Amino acid sequence: MINVLFAAKAERWETYEATLNEAFAEMGLTVDLRTSFAPEEVDYIVYAPNSDVQDFTPYTRCKAVLNLWAGVENVVGNTTLTQPLARMVDPGMTQGMVEWVTGHVMRHHLGIDLHIKGQDGEWRSYVPPLASERRVTILGLGQLGMACARAISGLGFPVTGWSRTQKQTDGITCLHGEEGLNVALGKADILVLLLPKTPATENILNAQSLALLPTGSFIINPGRGPLIDDDALLAALDAGQIAHATLDVFRVEPLPKDHPFWAHPRVTVTPHIASETRARTASQVIAENIRRGEAGEPFLYLVDRSAGY
Amino acid sequence: MINVLFAAKAERWETYEATLNEAFAEMGLTVDLRTSFAPEEVDYIVYAPNSDVQDFTPYTRCKAVLNLWAGVENVVGNTTLTQPLARMVDPGMTQGMVEWVTGHVMRHHLGIDLHIKGQDGEWRSYVPPLASERRVTILGLGQLGMACARAISGLGFPVTGWSRTQKQTDGITCLHGEEGLNVALGKADILVLLLPKTPATENILNAQSLALLPTGSFIINPGRGPLIDDDALLAALDAGQIAHATLDVFRVEPLPKDHPFWAHPRVTVTPHIASETRARTASQVIAENIRRGEAGEPFLYLVDRSAGY
Repeated sequence: MINVLFAAKAERWETYEATLNEAFAEMGLTVDLRTSFAPEEVDYIVYAPNSDVQDFTPYTRCKAVLNLWAGVENVVGNTTLTQPLARMVDPGMTQGMVEWVTGHVMRHHLGIDLHIKGQDGEWRSYVPPLASERRVTILGLGQLGMACARAISGLGFPVTGWSRTQKQTDGITCLHGEEGLNVALGKADILVLLLPKTPATENILNAQSLALLPTGSFIINPGRGPLIDDDALLAALDAGQIAHATLDVFRVEPLPKDHPFWAHPRVTVTPHIASETRARTASQVIAENIRRGEAGEPFLYLVDRSAGY
Repeated sequence: MINVLFAAKAERWETYEATLNEAFAEMGLTVDLRTSFAPEEVDYIVYAPNSDVQDFTPYTRCKAVLNLWAGVENVVGNTTLTQPLARMVDPGMTQGMVEWVTGHVMRHHLGIDLHIKGQDGEWRSYVPPLASERRVTILGLGQLGMACARAISGLGFPVTGWSRTQKQTDGITCLHGEEGLNVALGKADILVLLLPKTPATENILNAQSLALLPTGSFIINPGRGPLIDDDALLAALDAGQIAHATLDVFRVEPLPKDHPFWAHPRVTVTPHIASETRARTASQVIAENIRRGEAGEPFLYLVDRSAGY
């Protein structure tokens, strides 16, 4: 019997109890899954960083902490956590992210808002540009960034990707380093942010870097709120440097009612829906990692504590 | 010297004169391209159905009429036209169509309008469905329909296609015939119309066929206006049977200012931009057909007069 502690908010338990037990059974694992155990009896922790478990010291037998979220910024610095920590890389989440990013890239590319909001009886004929004439830059080429880069490139857009370490993939211009960042920003008719939140990425989009974007460019942020200096973005929108920002993540969530993003005519707010974990596929990922732990195989998606993700 | 008559509106001549001459030169053709000739001296006609040339009888030497438009409904019934007639199949137009259809499928799939129009400071958290849970049906599997079906299927949507004659392609459920049409409509959470306008397709979407769609489905029409019975669509929208219609083509274009589509909250009007011919790529297609005519090779994209397209 493998003892698995589910350490997340109660509403998550409702969603995950059945799908996790199903995934364990499919994997042939005999698991006792509960929301409480004596700490020294726990073999694995399925974990959300906003759960009550913040001190990992008493979990002396625990072989791994399996994060339910893609982001680990609220747990990676926890010094009581000495066990292996795995990020969530959920194929359902990746697919959802690709769909959300594709939808908003196409929306800005086609200028759909004008037709939705400005339907005034005037027939304005024009030839829209093709994707081949619209450059898309994606900051961050992890699982999510790379999947989005491939989908966007597949639709005909010239795609540039930028990441901390050099990556390589067919059909996508991959850049890295500070020099590479400046080049990538200069080609971003549409900019997509899919970086993790680390000290190195905080405010990566600030007054200086916003000024490097082509005039009238579009920003899409499904990554992390603190990647953007909010005040600098608002100033760049008001100056016309940025045509529109579509934001799914914020420094404080839910985004406070009085935040200027809500009322700004050229900001679209979506409620952190781009990267939603899907219970069924996420449960399969967790079951696979427990199977690996029991078989003595290396865990998938281990966090690099020094890099912070 | 090959004499090519350009028979289209004056504004088209401005767009096409340079790109056609470039394409002829690239193809090694020595062409005299003009907007007027003595009819008996003309070897080929580059043709728009709204041009002044409506009687083809005097063009006794003309080897082919090369249409600038994808649609031929306004020329195919012209009994004075005995020369071969080729439709425009422009890769730039196909790409533009794929982008427009992909953009509006993603927009309705993601419910983007709610975020654009209903931004009220309320954070409404929810898990959106994945593409795999949203069925898309495409009526018409010609060049444009097939290209769209492949792109939409590539994004993860289950796609059903319907056409007059049976087609087959990997990953897409291909249906035909009246029975097939009913099945295809019944699975259309999102319905895309890409049929040509023929007597058999006129009003294919009427009160009866609209009733076969799943409740709350979305209709996207970049095909031809007369495919839809406008009054039946308005009734289905008002009854909630159809959630939204995005229409790019109409029985009368520009869509008259007093047409109820303009003011309907659940209709989006775009000004016939989905299938715009692109001058550079279209000119290459025309040059290739003239090269074929001169070499005695069969023309590309010949119209089947009995089918009407």
